[in-house]
Amino acid sequence: MQIINNISAVRSKITALKKKNKSIGFVPTMGALHEGHLSLLRKAKKECDIVVLSIYVNPAQFGPREDFKAYPRDKKKDCLLAKKEKVDIIFYPSDKMMYPRRYLTYINVNEITSILCGKSRPTHFRGVTTIVGKLLNIAGPDVIYLGQKDAQQCIVIQKMIDDLNFPVKVRICPTVREKDGLALSSRNKYLSAKQRKEAVVLYQSLLLAKQHIRRGTKNIATIKNMMRKKIKKTSGKIDYIECVDAKTLEPIKTIKGKILIACAVKFGPARLIDNIIV
Amino acid sequence: MQIINNISAVRSKITALKKKNKSIGFVPTMGALHEGHLSLLRKAKKECDIVVLSIYVNPAQFGPREDFKAYPRDKKKDCLLAKKEKVDIIFYPSDKMMYPRRYLTYINVNEITSILCGKSRPTHFRGVTTIVGKLLNIAGPDVIYLGQKDAQQCIVIQKMIDDLNFPVKVRICPTVREKDGLALSSRNKYLSAKQRKEAVVLYQSLLLAKQHIRRGTKNIATIKNMMRKKIKKTSGKIDYIECVDAKTLEPIKTIKGKILIACAVKFGPARLIDNIIV
Repeated sequence: MQIINNISAVRSKITALKKKNKSIGFVPTMGALHEGHLSLLRKAKKECDIVVLSIYVNPAQFGPREDFKAYPRDKKKDCLLAKKEKVDIIFYPSDKMMYPRRYLTYINVNEITSILCGKSRPTHFRGVTTIVGKLLNIAGPDVIYLGQKDAQQCIVIQKMIDDLNFPVKVRICPTVREKDGLALSSRNKYLSAKQRKEAVVLYQSLLLAKQHIRRGTKNIATIKNMMRKKIKKTSGKIDYIECVDAKTLEPIKTIKGKILIACAVKFGPARLIDNIIV
Repeated sequence: MQIINNISAVRSKITALKKKNKSIGFVPTMGALHEGHLSLLRKAKKECDIVVLSIYVNPAQFGPREDFKAYPRDKKKDCLLAKKEKVDIIFYPSDKMMYPRRYLTYINVNEITSILCGKSRPTHFRGVTTIVGKLLNIAGPDVIYLGQKDAQQCIVIQKMIDDLNFPVKVRICPTVREKDGLALSSRNKYLSAKQRKEAVVLYQSLLLAKQHIRRGTKNIATIKNMMRKKIKKTSGKIDYIECVDAKTLEPIKTIKGKILIACAVKFGPARLIDNIIV
């Protein structure tokens, strides 16, 4: 396993591998690796000759009052975990390298970035699409691996890739959960013991919604109300609960076709998100 | 020479050539080819194994009241000229292919796109950077060739390529001029005989500025006034006359270092631009 800090070094390394007809699988992360990330690395290892992992806490996707500084960083542990998964290359750049002085360029996906998480985090997805665009240009992978936990991120990145004709395939892997159902997230570290116990309510409210849809409930307001009631029994503060088209994120009027049910709830400093597709 | 309309066809053709270690030179155009474009094709042919020419009148870079519909289109003539220059591949896509239904993604370079031409054409450069980003992802060239006539476009595209880490080199080629000095442009076709004669004033006013700078004039207002006076003797309507840093387009206070002097003047339906570096 090679840890590379430098853009031109990682690029020439990967270009050489591609000339030897090696396929490149790419997993972009902000580090603080957990089983969710590892499942992406395993999938990439299975499907591609070379696995490239990027670890970079991207300032552009954090709002001014968000947790950029507090975001967990543990290079040593991350590298150990990556080595166990037989990652070939870790790209570990600095802020100076990714956003040099007088940086001016951003990729914007309109409309679908101003709903759900984009409503309370207005510059978040601009930061995500910009860094992913940069990383795709640097690593030039054949396949990029993303986790379904960040459902909107998956759809926004897929849309950017389609619209801008990036020559890469997107593979979305299932959400990995704790035993009690809580979706794995680097931000779970922010939770107190009490909050940790309560936080399972995100998944439980999603399962409740699923159950009622399976039983025939078609009214979206009814479903959202049910979820809201359940979450309100905890100390969590609801950011949003939404039911939208699972492919386009477009608003829907009634339960029909594939639907994404998604919610965001704040427990103290931790803003948690979860979703299911029904 | 192959004319390809289809994104995946042109991509797989070029990918195959790159696997054979062929270098790819790329010239993006809106067609209506003139000696300026041909000089780019010749430079590309000299420096690269394969020359890819794209011909696409990009709607995203025209404002609502601009000349998108009137813009000259002559596929047959363009293909003949390209063949003479030994172009290997012409990429000739449709609007439907480049901007399918529910297209949402744009590349924005901030600041340097809202001055000079960007002031009177507020969405122009967003259209330019988006289409060039798309074409770079489709063609994957080693070198892109641009003409100095569109000075701001060259700097904006270079900035996008640097900021987003596109793996491509930029080569900027000198402006090609008519015998009397008028910069070649597809839009010169809009000029009446009288306007055509008058239009040489753009270059003449630039030369006047150069002369005075060479003689020691340091005051920018003086230089701009001189140019304004000269242009006002014709029927042309001045859009802007500017002196800025030739690398960054940043405003300057006095003549020092490499300076871009640029102007835009309207003659009837034709908005003409020209520039020199001093």
